[in-house]
Amino acid sequence: MIRHAADQLADYRLHLVLIHGGGSYAHPFVTRSGVGGGLRDRSQLRSISETEFYLGQLTRIIYASLLLRNMNPVPLHPMSFATLDKGEVKKFLLDPIRKSLDAGLTPLLHGDLVFDESRGIGVLSGDRIASLIGSKMGAFRVLFGCDVDGVYSANPKNFPNATLIPEVNSENFRSVLSASRSPSTDATGSMGEKVKQAIWLAKNGCECYIFNLREKNALRMILDQTGSIGTRFVPWKKSRKSVKQSPQRA
Amino acid sequence: MIRHAADQLADYRLHLVLIHGGGSYAHPFVTRSGVGGGLRDRSQLRSISETEFYLGQLTRIIYASLLLRNMNPVPLHPMSFATLDKGEVKKFLLDPIRKSLDAGLTPLLHGDLVFDESRGIGVLSGDRIASLIGSKMGAFRVLFGCDVDGVYSANPKNFPNATLIPEVNSENFRSVLSASRSPSTDATGSMGEKVKQAIWLAKNGCECYIFNLREKNALRMILDQTGSIGTRFVPWKKSRKSVKQSPQRA
Repeated sequence: MIRHAADQLADYRLHLVLIHGGGSYAHPFVTRSGVGGGLRDRSQLRSISETEFYLGQLTRIIYASLLLRNMNPVPLHPMSFATLDKGEVKKFLLDPIRKSLDAGLTPLLHGDLVFDESRGIGVLSGDRIASLIGSKMGAFRVLFGCDVDGVYSANPKNFPNATLIPEVNSENFRSVLSASRSPSTDATGSMGEKVKQAIWLAKNGCECYIFNLREKNALRMILDQTGSIGTRFVPWKKSRKSVKQSPQRA
Repeated sequence: MIRHAADQLADYRLHLVLIHGGGSYAHPFVTRSGVGGGLRDRSQLRSISETEFYLGQLTRIIYASLLLRNMNPVPLHPMSFATLDKGEVKKFLLDPIRKSLDAGLTPLLHGDLVFDESRGIGVLSGDRIASLIGSKMGAFRVLFGCDVDGVYSANPKNFPNATLIPEVNSENFRSVLSASRSPSTDATGSMGEKVKQAIWLAKNGCECYIFNLREKNALRMILDQTGSIGTRFVPWKKSRKSVKQSPQRA
């Protein structure tokens, strides 16, 4: 899937911020050690060190796949530039992201463990990072790639008759948000979190997509605006004009 | 040498910030592409991406060697948390370093390419990072490990009769500083930079050592204060009392 996504990104010429999740390289360790809820005892320190090590390996795999396609990525690590307080973002140094885009580089970020003023440590999800950067930098679009086709009327794993919602707008967003809030074992909120962040961005004038990154050429179609696929979040406010295209959650 | 240094660090129980240089993983790319002097054309973007990739690999090797010795490191990357302006440090987010020490983790940093407001990009050397963190966090000691025995009266590669200076203090620091300023092909200033940073720290009350990291047990002897080796920089002002021990440049 990484190669497939990298193939579709390689030809894209506008500004792009890439953000990957922790996937199987981080979620199981975070969930098992409970560090997402804060630091309680010294045994968790080992989990933090190991999580960072495995997560770093996933970043390297993605990084290499971009280098091999002649892209020029730079890795930026949230633990190094962001802090939380009671789970809310407190500090977030945007300058390296902005400067790397200005230079013509492609910043590569990821969901991460981040130090928390009150709780010691916490999780800053890739979805939350995407919406933060999207709003702070006035992104044109934010794309949330995942492993299902988009947002459904109910959890399709439990309700086989659930239908895909092609468009979320100022009319239907409340019902979509409540339908997407199903219990999840994912360390960072799964679909409910994506929907929440996408609605928040759309309210602030930024177009979003939640779509299946496994789907052949779905990413390319959305990037090139040659087709609508997955669930599109229509901006409420007039969309901002910006050369900075789509922080991309892959 | 990494294993040797990690062996000596593994038993140390006080606060420790580890900083490694770029060595052969970064210096040749930085020197060849000239990115240390700023961003001039698009061909340098590839060098930035590759430098970050190779440097990341060196960090992983060191990281793994610490994990294997039951230490709990966390990697913090200067490109992500610092910026320059005309080569001078402009922003430097200290919170993750401070919070990781508070938690009982060992932050692992490195000399790095860092975005520069005016020049696009520049080098923030491990030596400069060590003195910045040492002073901002009130470190007790800063140790500069390198591949020579310490500071010499002249460059020992050119002057075989040069002698090792065991102690630098408020009396002899000017002559030592001028003797250490020999031309160097190192991307980040080599011995001259270390001496400059160590003198600046000593003036501000922080003890420093420049010593040979290849020397058997040298690092352990300095950490445990069981012997003086290399060149010791005696603090001019009364040394600060602090539980935060020695940002360590390895």
